[in-house]
Amino acid sequence: MRNVHVPIREGYEIFIGSGLIREAGARIAQISSPSRIAVITDSTVDALYADALLSSLEQAGFAPCKYVFPAGEASKNVSTYAKILEFLAEHGMDRKSLIVALGGGVTGDMAGFAAATYMRGIPYVQIPTTLLAAIDSSVGGKTAVDLSAGKNLAGAFHQPSLVLCDTDALETLSPEIFADGAAEAIKYGVLDSTALFEQICRNKIGADREEIIEKCVCIKRDYVAQDERDTGARQFLNLGHTIGHAIEACSNFTISHGHAVAIGMVLMARGAHRAGLLEADCSQEIARAAAAFGLETHCPYDAGALYAASGKDKKRGGASITLVLPEQIGKCRLEKVSMQTLGEIIRLGVEA
Amino acid sequence: MRNVHVPIREGYEIFIGSGLIREAGARIAQISSPSRIAVITDSTVDALYADALLSSLEQAGFAPCKYVFPAGEASKNVSTYAKILEFLAEHGMDRKSLIVALGGGVTGDMAGFAAATYMRGIPYVQIPTTLLAAIDSSVGGKTAVDLSAGKNLAGAFHQPSLVLCDTDALETLSPEIFADGAAEAIKYGVLDSTALFEQICRNKIGADREEIIEKCVCIKRDYVAQDERDTGARQFLNLGHTIGHAIEACSNFTISHGHAVAIGMVLMARGAHRAGLLEADCSQEIARAAAAFGLETHCPYDAGALYAASGKDKKRGGASITLVLPEQIGKCRLEKVSMQTLGEIIRLGVEA
Repeated sequence: MRNVHVPIREGYEIFIGSGLIREAGARIAQISSPSRIAVITDSTVDALYADALLSSLEQAGFAPCKYVFPAGEASKNVSTYAKILEFLAEHGMDRKSLIVALGGGVTGDMAGFAAATYMRGIPYVQIPTTLLAAIDSSVGGKTAVDLSAGKNLAGAFHQPSLVLCDTDALETLSPEIFADGAAEAIKYGVLDSTALFEQICRNKIGADREEIIEKCVCIKRDYVAQDERDTGARQFLNLGHTIGHAIEACSNFTISHGHAVAIGMVLMARGAHRAGLLEADCSQEIARAAAAFGLETHCPYDAGALYAASGKDKKRGGASITLVLPEQIGKCRLEKVSMQTLGEIIRLGVEA
Repeated sequence: MRNVHVPIREGYEIFIGSGLIREAGARIAQISSPSRIAVITDSTVDALYADALLSSLEQAGFAPCKYVFPAGEASKNVSTYAKILEFLAEHGMDRKSLIVALGGGVTGDMAGFAAATYMRGIPYVQIPTTLLAAIDSSVGGKTAVDLSAGKNLAGAFHQPSLVLCDTDALETLSPEIFADGAAEAIKYGVLDSTALFEQICRNKIGADREEIIEKCVCIKRDYVAQDERDTGARQFLNLGHTIGHAIEACSNFTISHGHAVAIGMVLMARGAHRAGLLEADCSQEIARAAAAFGLETHCPYDAGALYAASGKDKKRGGASITLVLPEQIGKCRLEKVSMQTLGEIIRLGVEA
């Protein structure tokens, strides 16, 4: 098992290892004495892991209640959020109660937002069950729900009290869902080092998954620690995301987040190189890493559609946008460009 | 005009005076350059002050959009909140945009919560139009909406960028709505000093209203500055609120907040004295101050109903509760008591 300390204010611990769902009750009891515990999960994860979690909580002396919502991004809206809040109130949750988010990114984001806002904020514990949630959502304290107008448009910053990444849960992921997380792991490789990048390509996040998750989580932690409110260094974490979000939007979210980010990284590397902003073009190396997980990186949309969708990205404040440009594997830089330049990069990236 | 600086992190200014709605555009332009401005208001205030505000914003070079919801506490729910969020997204509000909350406590709380959570937090300006909002909601950064299970059960801490208390708006308040704010002003007198208490009784928040608002706001500011997250000194501000909230709940919110707080203060002063927790009984002085604003302080509910309702107060964490006990006018103390003791205080307070 691995353990990463995330030093945001009082800080919290991330544990990564086998069997952590069964240990959840004891580990929560070590750090707090909540008056009540509510487990929030989706229908898929409920069937797989809720019983083990509830047993563990009961063995530790808690009397947990459970709210289950239908699995899928379509549930991540204000209506489900409102139902969770009402559930918490109906079950007597107070300011000293605790929420446990058991599931992938949708569950973590939405249960985290409920925790951030129920009685103006109660503690929560994350138990990510996907690779993407383990390496991406477990650090940073971003919680959110979607609006009709776009993903993650409402939310709050709220740090968890504890994160338990049970690597056993990764065994039940489909190759597509696993690849979704792999794309984010590749992103950390591109940001951080050729060593991590090559390790991911070579071992395909197999037997060394504890180590890979720990490395990714530490990289994100270090960016976030510099910049808790997402205005500076944390922008590096958006590598592949500007175009990635546009691809997700163009596909009406039928292309998953990780897959879209993989395409986004490839397009950005190629387009920015061709636009003269990058000396080298590392798009082929990124595409090769993605292919190791079955991630296709050809973009199915034309430049005009992508550009129109990228204009709606919530990180954009006004007429310019900050891009993350991969100079080489292991080294990126931030550059603020006009929307026109982004259009040019997209055009040059899409033309293969 | 008066001006109070509230030093929470970067801090913000509260201006109190005549004609501030007409100056709003210029004053906002002095402190920020928002990409867009959305004005959130209710149907009552819209008819009275929205035109003046929008003109002022336009004269300052902004192109504001406006969202109007039906006046009343019934609107303060997750459904209206969701509509506000969708409105913001539809009108192209981004992270550098600004919300202006024009209205009483319902508007300030709900628009503030939308600002706290839209794109994980954008700035907002409060323009309180009731006495209660001017002295109570403009400091503290508490934002909220109601759930079916209770008032203010969902929300966030989010400080405004600027507060403009236009005292002209107080002219259009009904005596009942004015008295609602007066009850909170009396609370500040009981907390702070016989001088403020007597000034409120004597002048009935008349020609000296700028001064009274400034004093109340400064008292609240000083408590909040000690305790931004509402865990310590800020609890003093709950004077009259434990029983007050129970009265509101028993009346199904037909008894207004200020009126309920006035009764709550009287019951607490009398009950705690009779229970042996207070040497003196200042309930009659509080009742006299309340009567100056037409506030009746007889409690229409029996002790059993009040006690049952007080058990649901969100500030309660477990089997004990922290009460604010008025030792004399101008001096209160906090005391943690069992729920049983609270029941005894309520019983002794209600029996006149």
